[in-house]
Amino acid sequence: MRDVIEKSLLSFLPERSLSAARLLDAMTYSLLGGGKRLRPTLLLMTARACGLPIDRVLPAACAVEMIHTYSLIHDDLPAMDNDDYRRGKLTNHKQFDEATAILAGDALLTLAFETILLTEVDAQTRLFLVRELSQASGARGMVAGQMLDLLAEGKRITDEQLVEIHAKKTGALLRASVRMGALAAEVNQETLCALTIYAESIGLAFQIQDDILDVTGDVLLLGKQTGADLALQKATYPARYGLAGARDRVKELTQRAVNALQEPNLSLEASTLIDLAYLLTERVF
Amino acid sequence: MRDVIEKSLLSFLPERSLSAARLLDAMTYSLLGGGKRLRPTLLLMTARACGLPIDRVLPAACAVEMIHTYSLIHDDLPAMDNDDYRRGKLTNHKQFDEATAILAGDALLTLAFETILLTEVDAQTRLFLVRELSQASGARGMVAGQMLDLLAEGKRITDEQLVEIHAKKTGALLRASVRMGALAAEVNQETLCALTIYAESIGLAFQIQDDILDVTGDVLLLGKQTGADLALQKATYPARYGLAGARDRVKELTQRAVNALQEPNLSLEASTLIDLAYLLTERVF
Repeated sequence: MRDVIEKSLLSFLPERSLSAARLLDAMTYSLLGGGKRLRPTLLLMTARACGLPIDRVLPAACAVEMIHTYSLIHDDLPAMDNDDYRRGKLTNHKQFDEATAILAGDALLTLAFETILLTEVDAQTRLFLVRELSQASGARGMVAGQMLDLLAEGKRITDEQLVEIHAKKTGALLRASVRMGALAAEVNQETLCALTIYAESIGLAFQIQDDILDVTGDVLLLGKQTGADLALQKATYPARYGLAGARDRVKELTQRAVNALQEPNLSLEASTLIDLAYLLTERVF
Repeated sequence: MRDVIEKSLLSFLPERSLSAARLLDAMTYSLLGGGKRLRPTLLLMTARACGLPIDRVLPAACAVEMIHTYSLIHDDLPAMDNDDYRRGKLTNHKQFDEATAILAGDALLTLAFETILLTEVDAQTRLFLVRELSQASGARGMVAGQMLDLLAEGKRITDEQLVEIHAKKTGALLRASVRMGALAAEVNQETLCALTIYAESIGLAFQIQDDILDVTGDVLLLGKQTGADLALQKATYPARYGLAGARDRVKELTQRAVNALQEPNLSLEASTLIDLAYLLTERVF
């Protein structure tokens, strides 16, 4: 599945013209620069679990990854998290420059909405996909999460605020990935609800796992410095509940995700999604 | 028309919640911070000229203005044009901070694609609008133009390159504004072509006029410093052809725009669009 995602991402990038070469190089550098491809994988696996051939939703899957990639480029900027490395390579603004990185992010964000239109579903369903993606990634979703995360640096925040930051910053796009797979397959409301609970649960578990890896992870495997959250005095689960408490929470959430898909009468073949939920708890990068 | 645009822009902003207040304040600051509203006006006037009531395309008009506003916020950033003032007020990153300005831009860009979905036309036509907007504002359009503009600073460039920068940086979105009005009204191909020529012509004239005003304009009326292009050694029409030459070019282009709409057999009521073309040549800010 990973291979088909990589090929599709490449195919949806604009042609490299002489005049816009630098912009496209910067977009390509980050978009094809590795990464787990979790979001497009979730979208494709959900679509398939709901009976839709994955080649019909590849554009939507790539659109989600473009949004994710742009957000990383902008989050790494000096004015934001000021990171020099990402996925074991220089961050976009270090490899190019700040102006180029800002523009490459803007262009990837825009390209996501151009690409999603190519999803092979009917017109009304395509509109649902655009809505899902825009709502998840904008001022009530991912961008709000990044804003809240920045504002929370060095401050005391409540448990509720910590959950809200995670739900928006990482959770919203993971949730949308699963939901877009389901929406494309035009599943019934009950199945969409179950998949949404699944997505929200693994989304939060994924973020807690990220925080845990920032404390315990291997720099080489992660491709970025560990201890960054601590240095920025970021609110994290391990800082609040200890490593053991955070790990317990990951297990609970994973079980919740699995349970949601084991409800009777859902119109999906849940096994691969359940496997994925367990697999994510074991990741080391 | 301006009044209805201002009200609509406000109505499409997300509700102000306590947690995301700063992000929304920054978005609102720039989106409702004045401006000529040329792009939404063009879209609405075109739709009306093609027989469509403007209230049905207000979401599309606001979406275009959101894209325009985000591009100004990002262009003003220190890493880009490094401007302190815009429309007589502090630029977004000066009023808030760089991180907030980057995120407010991202959020407005995303909100544009959420808002455009509310346009009251059929599903397939809405998809055409999303495509038009994304193509015009992305890596083959506006963002590419900004990249080229930055790369051209202090360099000798050809006439063709100067035209390409203008066509992409400013022209693409003005062109899309007119075309979206026409697409929403489902005009025939001939009318769409004529309106596209009209849009491309006034778009280039508008940019040349901008360059002229950067030399001759009144700081108070413009709400920003003049001479900025010169200071940045930017390629401009006045720098290349002198003020008189640049003014002649504005007249020629305006005439070309008007002529395109005076072709027989077009399915539109062209008079207000023609008036607007002439009006734009007389603007002083």
